[in-house]
Amino acid sequence: MIEQFERLPGIGPRTAQRLALHLLRQPEEQIQSFAEALLAARRQVGQCQTCFHLSAEPTCEICRNPERGTSGLLCVVADSRDLLALERTREYAGRYHVLGGLISPMDGIGPEMLQVSSLVQRVEAESIVEVILALTPSVEGDTTSLYLARLLRPFTRVSRIAYGLPVGSELEYADDVTLSRALEGRRDVV
Amino acid sequence: MIEQFERLPGIGPRTAQRLALHLLRQPEEQIQSFAEALLAARRQVGQCQTCFHLSAEPTCEICRNPERGTSGLLCVVADSRDLLALERTREYAGRYHVLGGLISPMDGIGPEMLQVSSLVQRVEAESIVEVILALTPSVEGDTTSLYLARLLRPFTRVSRIAYGLPVGSELEYADDVTLSRALEGRRDVV
Repeated sequence: MIEQFERLPGIGPRTAQRLALHLLRQPEEQIQSFAEALLAARRQVGQCQTCFHLSAEPTCEICRNPERGTSGLLCVVADSRDLLALERTREYAGRYHVLGGLISPMDGIGPEMLQVSSLVQRVEAESIVEVILALTPSVEGDTTSLYLARLLRPFTRVSRIAYGLPVGSELEYADDVTLSRALEGRRDVV
Repeated sequence: MIEQFERLPGIGPRTAQRLALHLLRQPEEQIQSFAEALLAARRQVGQCQTCFHLSAEPTCEICRNPERGTSGLLCVVADSRDLLALERTREYAGRYHVLGGLISPMDGIGPEMLQVSSLVQRVEAESIVEVILALTPSVEGDTTSLYLARLLRPFTRVSRIAYGLPVGSELEYADDVTLSRALEGRRDVV
């Protein structure tokens, strides 16, 4: 059991031991329901056939919600964790498309290994007003953004989230690249 | 000597003691020149009469350099530390204006306590094409940006640096406010 826990991300030998010893002190029914929950989740959770977000149903809750389609916005993210981060802000009312990663020639990950052709199909089929690329500000994120922008611009407006100073940060402590991006990405105050 | 060092920002009792003991082991001439450097700096360094950056001359190096005036850009910062941070990026070729702080009604700091009227005078007198507000993304920074934008917009274009995800960061770990700002501040990919 300790070895199994150790395989999980962010769990070292000590934490694994603590978790295992804790479980051993619980009644058997509780461990039974824990084990069943793991198996059930693994069996039931698949991908939404439309946006490729994690979902227990063939189509996820967001794609099933007609209100999320009214804005005509489609936000492209690398994975489901990023989608959940955006959902936490409660600012975004449109739909998503989960790529399943970022283009990375160094790691041999090309567009054909990601949900790119399904994205193009959606943009062509659904009435998408704007595709918002919400990818991390990194070499891979920038490469993927540029690739997708070139691909999608014939069909719709393509934007990307802002890169710059995080809220509450000090200009003085910002790294040079972020400051350069913040200067370069300045906006008119209206 | 230890007490004097302790008064400096970021220096605790232990560091103060270490610095003091180090100096005591140096030859007297060295301490003499250290003390003189402190006094000379305090006596000579004042403010540039134009931009209010720290300067040993009545007009600072940036304001004296005619090349820095050709772009017609004027970048407004809260203090000289922020100016130096922007200079480190080597991305910005225009001039600066140092406010000497940010508007903060909570702390009783109004526009009249900052270099605001001198800024308006400069914008009217010099041929400024664009004022770039490079203030921290905080309540005070936003208040100051809005105040200055309203004041300066009759004379020139006013922009502010981008707020959003810092370069190299992960979407997943961004705080909600920063993510909201990054979404809201999205830009068309061209």
